[in-house]
Amino acid sequence: MQSLPGFRDFLPNDCAARNYIFARWREVCRRYGFVEWDGPVLEPTDLYKKKSGPEIVAQLFSFTDKGEREVAMRPELTPTLARVIAAHEREFKKPLKWFSIPQCFRYEKQQRGRLREHFQLNCDIIGDQSSGADVELIALCIDLLREVGLAADDFVVRISDRAAWDRFLPDFGIGPEQKADFLNVIDKLDREEVEKIQPKLELFGVSVARLMAFLANANLEWFAPLREQLETRDLLQYCEFNLRIVRGLAYYTGVVFEVFDRPRKFRAIAGGGRYDTLIHQLSDGAVDFPAVGFAMGDVVLGELIKEVPSARKKMEEAIQSQHDLQIYAVIAKEERRPDALQLIQTLRDNGYRVDYSLTPAKVGKQFQTAEQLGARLAVLFGDEWPQLKLKDLCTGDQSLVPREELPARVATLLSSRA
Amino acid sequence: MQSLPGFRDFLPNDCAARNYIFARWREVCRRYGFVEWDGPVLEPTDLYKKKSGPEIVAQLFSFTDKGEREVAMRPELTPTLARVIAAHEREFKKPLKWFSIPQCFRYEKQQRGRLREHFQLNCDIIGDQSSGADVELIALCIDLLREVGLAADDFVVRISDRAAWDRFLPDFGIGPEQKADFLNVIDKLDREEVEKIQPKLELFGVSVARLMAFLANANLEWFAPLREQLETRDLLQYCEFNLRIVRGLAYYTGVVFEVFDRPRKFRAIAGGGRYDTLIHQLSDGAVDFPAVGFAMGDVVLGELIKEVPSARKKMEEAIQSQHDLQIYAVIAKEERRPDALQLIQTLRDNGYRVDYSLTPAKVGKQFQTAEQLGARLAVLFGDEWPQLKLKDLCTGDQSLVPREELPARVATLLSSRA
Repeated sequence: MQSLPGFRDFLPNDCAARNYIFARWREVCRRYGFVEWDGPVLEPTDLYKKKSGPEIVAQLFSFTDKGEREVAMRPELTPTLARVIAAHEREFKKPLKWFSIPQCFRYEKQQRGRLREHFQLNCDIIGDQSSGADVELIALCIDLLREVGLAADDFVVRISDRAAWDRFLPDFGIGPEQKADFLNVIDKLDREEVEKIQPKLELFGVSVARLMAFLANANLEWFAPLREQLETRDLLQYCEFNLRIVRGLAYYTGVVFEVFDRPRKFRAIAGGGRYDTLIHQLSDGAVDFPAVGFAMGDVVLGELIKEVPSARKKMEEAIQSQHDLQIYAVIAKEERRPDALQLIQTLRDNGYRVDYSLTPAKVGKQFQTAEQLGARLAVLFGDEWPQLKLKDLCTGDQSLVPREELPARVATLLSSRA
Repeated sequence: MQSLPGFRDFLPNDCAARNYIFARWREVCRRYGFVEWDGPVLEPTDLYKKKSGPEIVAQLFSFTDKGEREVAMRPELTPTLARVIAAHEREFKKPLKWFSIPQCFRYEKQQRGRLREHFQLNCDIIGDQSSGADVELIALCIDLLREVGLAADDFVVRISDRAAWDRFLPDFGIGPEQKADFLNVIDKLDREEVEKIQPKLELFGVSVARLMAFLANANLEWFAPLREQLETRDLLQYCEFNLRIVRGLAYYTGVVFEVFDRPRKFRAIAGGGRYDTLIHQLSDGAVDFPAVGFAMGDVVLGELIKEVPSARKKMEEAIQSQHDLQIYAVIAKEERRPDALQLIQTLRDNGYRVDYSLTPAKVGKQFQTAEQLGARLAVLFGDEWPQLKLKDLCTGDQSLVPREELPARVATLLSSRA
């Protein structure tokens, strides 16, 4: 019995790491006034055929259901967003600031580190076309990463703008019908040798020298307003501006950005941009809203957190404080078991994480289990009854506490440690 | 463009209710020393063919993937649990106390209130065959419901025991080969008229009178140990003991229980029991652990919470305190926008939920938005700069605060309200 290739089991440690990332994501999104929503894992295949690029459609987990419907497991959330907005937009004040953490599925070619599912934070501002919205979203993206302990040394947000090319392409004598091909060449500027780029540019009648001069200038001038707003928020050190960044998706209409780890060890941490025409197109013209959004996956971010010691430490501490046992009840005399169960129930009612051995076990073994489960305190039910021996498993301190004083004593000890 | 029948969209209010239930579930499970895990949404179809009943297999969302694998969207989590345990049990100390909140899928006949997906809390104790484990699990189930504000008036845990029948069937002269058919008749005792039951019982040579006499007696005697343990925990008022309860699933071997709302308006809130042979069978004999577990769905519980005023109020308050905006920045003079953004960034860094208008808007409209978004405080950036007008939107109190004192003042106001 094996799981499918590309699908993860989340053992308790993996699940705790996943929950940690999700909790940080939710926390920061809410600080920014974003509200969470979600759509179905399964949608009519047509929803994706209509909008997603041919690459995505080729990678669908799609099938015919028992009702003869063509259905697909979601490869991305934006088509569902457009469907939901078209159906419900009147119920909400614009702009919408919405986020979601869908699990998405793609049948990708199997290779190391390539999964067929991942969780993906989606954040979108719908119904606002200001550059203020672009900056709000970029700031959110940065703060999501700062929240998990990543710093300006660890990641960079690379920002570009499709609208700049729309503005400047005519100056190069390039018409709308050549735009996609030209941007394809631009997209490779950073990765290809000048000798390879040159002939490609010449096809458009553009020299490398002229393009470089343009870029140097445009990168300074075009991004001045964005730069200023990010500086106001003290976020400039996380950003790079570079018109060479194009990003693949055809539907972007304005600002685009992508986030990478500084050493470029990993694939993109996040990516997004403005898509002012997509909702109109996806909703078959039912609604028309400017929008800007990005997605951040759990896989690359999780790897990066493990790589950066401060981020890793922050995660481990957060998991520990939320998951580790607080109290282990050691039942030294079996006749004390009912007394122990009563007190355990009280302590759990008070909100503490408490465990005990379900069956009789030697005292030494019970203490060993307490330590293995990360308990901070052990309460021993034995000969001292109706007093209890309370042991601090960090400091080793022991004291005798009357049964009725235990909840208060535990509260003091656990809060002083926090 | 429509979603598929039986699949939910979670608009922000629905998603907040879902998150509330999940958060309560996680909190209580952790108090009981349970740790969270998860498996894949998609598994090889064989995993379910091997174990799930024919009803479940008939309702699978199953298909052939692009790699010619027979795959299915998970209808339940237990087969995955057995697979994971078989592969990893050596890494963990027994007993395992594990929980998970998978989304599960079944192609059920479409009718009002019947969905094709739901989220389902699964809690299992693996590797302990004591009745202490049964009670620990029942106590957890009760506390999960108490945690969302449900009381003994609202729900009942109906407890039975398959082992009792194994013990007593020989006294009725019923052999193992007749067991399933006989329990099928028992299962209908509560729902069918005596006249209908009588002839069915007679097929087994059992009279209604004798069966009733047995049940009256056995219900008292058999459950004495369970009753005692639940009384120790002060949970007896939530429980009913009744051997007539059989529960459909063939794999239960001991205690079984199901939870219903007292007025029986809804389907079962939760159900589970002991399955000591299943993991051995599912793992093809690779591992052998006694186990007890239950599942609780999000749909019925969500409906019940909405039905019970105290539970509903608790949910609404929890959602509000976690989701509502805390501060709305009103930008009365556009030249103050950079100052506002700076302060907004600081307040968000301090952990507050803060929003503002991305584009210029009239002051009255900004205050209106603040109220609609549930903000507690409004901070006005206007002529008073570098002082700020701070307005408590609950009490209407206003005061002027120097810019640098605002974070401290906000902290005082928001904590005093909590």
